[in-house]
Amino acid sequence: MNKYIVEFIGTFFLILTIGLTVIGGAGSFAPLAIGSVLMVMIYAGGHISGAHYNPAVTLGVWMRGKCATSDVPMYMIAQIVGGALAGFIVMYLLGKGGAPAENFDPIKALVAEFLGTFALVYVVLNTATTKSNDGNSFYGLAIGFTVLACAYALGGISGGAFNPAVAVGVSVMSLSSWANIWVFLVGNFAAGAAAALVFKAVYKGDD
Amino acid sequence: MNKYIVEFIGTFFLILTIGLTVIGGAGSFAPLAIGSVLMVMIYAGGHISGAHYNPAVTLGVWMRGKCATSDVPMYMIAQIVGGALAGFIVMYLLGKGGAPAENFDPIKALVAEFLGTFALVYVVLNTATTKSNDGNSFYGLAIGFTVLACAYALGGISGGAFNPAVAVGVSVMSLSSWANIWVFLVGNFAAGAAAALVFKAVYKGDD
Amino acid sequence: MNKYIVEFIGTFFLILTIGLTVIGGAGSFAPLAIGSVLMVMIYAGGHISGAHYNPAVTLGVWMRGKCATSDVPMYMIAQIVGGALAGFIVMYLLGKGGAPAENFDPIKALVAEFLGTFALVYVVLNTATTKSNDGNSFYGLAIGFTVLACAYALGGISGGAFNPAVAVGVSVMSLSSWANIWVFLVGNFAAGAAAALVFKAVYKGDD
Amino acid sequence: MNKYIVEFIGTFFLILTIGLTVIGGAGSFAPLAIGSVLMVMIYAGGHISGAHYNPAVTLGVWMRGKCATSDVPMYMIAQIVGGALAGFIVMYLLGKGGAPAENFDPIKALVAEFLGTFALVYVVLNTATTKSNDGNSFYGLAIGFTVLACAYALGGISGGAFNPAVAVGVSVMSLSSWANIWVFLVGNFAAGAAAALVFKAVYKGDD
Repeated sequence: MNKYIVEFIGTFFLILTIGLTVIGGAGSFAPLAIGSVLMVMIYAGGHISGAHYNPAVTLGVWMRGKCATSDVPMYMIAQIVGGALAGFIVMYLLGKGGAPAENFDPIKALVAEFLGTFALVYVVLNTATTKSNDGNSFYGLAIGFTVLACAYALGGISGGAFNPAVAVGVSVMSLSSWANIWVFLVGNFAAGAAAALVFKAVYKGDD
Repeated sequence: MNKYIVEFIGTFFLILTIGLTVIGGAGSFAPLAIGSVLMVMIYAGGHISGAHYNPAVTLGVWMRGKCATSDVPMYMIAQIVGGALAGFIVMYLLGKGGAPAENFDPIKALVAEFLGTFALVYVVLNTATTKSNDGNSFYGLAIGFTVLACAYALGGISGGAFNPAVAVGVSVMSLSSWANIWVFLVGNFAAGAAAALVFKAVYKGDD
Repeated sequence: MNKYIVEFIGTFFLILTIGLTVIGGAGSFAPLAIGSVLMVMIYAGGHISGAHYNPAVTLGVWMRGKCATSDVPMYMIAQIVGGALAGFIVMYLLGKGGAPAENFDPIKALVAEFLGTFALVYVVLNTATTKSNDGNSFYGLAIGFTVLACAYALGGISGGAFNPAVAVGVSVMSLSSWANIWVFLVGNFAAGAAAALVFKAVYKGDD
Repeated sequence: MNKYIVEFIGTFFLILTIGLTVIGGAGSFAPLAIGSVLMVMIYAGGHISGAHYNPAVTLGVWMRGKCATSDVPMYMIAQIVGGALAGFIVMYLLGKGGAPAENFDPIKALVAEFLGTFALVYVVLNTATTKSNDGNSFYGLAIGFTVLACAYALGGISGGAFNPAVAVGVSVMSLSSWANIWVFLVGNFAAGAAAALVFKAVYKGDD
């Protein structure tokens, strides 16, 4: 149970920060804040739950054999509930929701979400689940700043979710249209699976 | 005594940086500077005092059993004196104080201060007081950048203190009205206590 | 083979981020995103390939005796193919390429590329190949943020590649003219070699 | 000799970055680049020379007993030569020097330089010279980002040198008037000494 609470808390603060910075007017500083909050929540929760905060990460970590099958459904539920709740809190605090981007191209967005999520899960698996990197202090910085970099690079094309729980949260707060949520679900889960397959092909460590 | 001096120095530089960047015109770079100075003062002072620099952190760490009861009053006094002195130095250096935000909503500010301080104390307890994260090099980065992220996300709503000593300092330099200081005291101490309770519920390590 | 795939992936994401942030309008935040993506790909791939992502780094590491001669050609090919492919993906996603800087001075650019690449390879050799820094968690941060700093400092003069694979990628996407690619090839490889010579002169460790 | 070369290289790149970003138009991103380049040069050179890159740091480390007296003059000469040379390279690359701030108040600048340098040397001594922090990976991040934070906070008052070698370099490139260099020499060396005294009073470790 404690693992699910940690997943809920981390995902809640991730999506709270996304909504408040993007709708609230932090402008181009939003990715810095978002990458940072993901980093700090990973450092805070990693020792308890593994600090996924992202159903696509949970999929990839499960395929890599580092997440118990029995934990997968509750992890994803905790993440999505945390993301949705954050969406409502954002709207309460700002007194408004956001508006979806007008030039959303679903195919390019799908490519962008695939690329960003692939990078994210590839970094997670290499920095946080391998024996050769055991005991390092950089995993949170690496994972959080992957989202920072990909949000600057790809955010203008897809919005830069790279995370189905984020997709739910930004749909709740009207930053993204519910009609487009399939783009995120397909792109993110496909990329999480692809990153796990690539990781398993290139990592030759014994654990 | 040396611990109290370290708490004084760290809190002084935290609030000096807040005042000089917010009033002095660093604009949207202020949270980057503020999160960074908190980080560096934590790395500098952690091995001596634990590097709280925040009465709400001291409350949370004390509830978690990692701060001696006899240290609590002097820690808080050193922090508040450091914050107040920083406020006067800021006004000397800039030749002026600040002005409170005009659209301050006390209830939303209370929610914002609670959320940001909860995140901060939750990150502190997990990264700096647990055996499973012993010897890590990331605790300062995690704690400092929690304030960075929360200042970008919540600063527009409450000013983004997350710290009663900061609340005193920004009141000294007129960035916040003394009439609103209860918002910070209530929100910050309540969140520090809540984070300690949640931490104790979810952390199952043996120390 | 797995090492070459890792070099391909890391260089691909580095140059994808360069193109999307510089052409796509991230403005002065581009170096932050670029330094960050280099950092995260180094943390992700370091334990497999050494995470060069740059033919000039491969040259320097080989001269320092930490890259097998048999790996050098395939490393460079994987990096350049990754950079070129990223250039095409950028143009697909943005629907356009970039435009070369109009005030490009080849001699000053050569000096700028030499200085930036020297700093980069000097940091790589000291932080990632020495026994005295073995097991540190900072090598990715150090290397990535060298590019961040040098891009802010020198980007206005040369574009700030510091990497022949980046030079190919930005030429593919028309951010730089093919007629000027010699500036990067000469400046980057000369600096990689010079950094290796300086490193060998100043490092007195036993490995 | 190798230690002096490392001090020369690190200080050269620090002041090269200062000149190119401040005169060259990086605007408010300059402190990010400057703090980052100091960080990376500390990580690169720390294992060889201790990575001072600053005569005021050399003074403080010498008072704390961690720099041989015989090294002090050559360290300071290497730093100042590196800073001056960087000033000339900046003017070559940009085709111009800078202009001193018009509203320079020597007394406030002296206070600002004292405060920033005190913070810097205090962080250096605690993170890079104590047994209780031995083997950490954060010292470069802590020291570099102290300059980042203090440059945002105090740069508008004194220019934000916190380093006599920087003062020489920025005077060479006309960012500061030679008539004001005493402000930096007095403020920086006094603060380096004060930080060493405070450190020795509060640090109770056995080494």
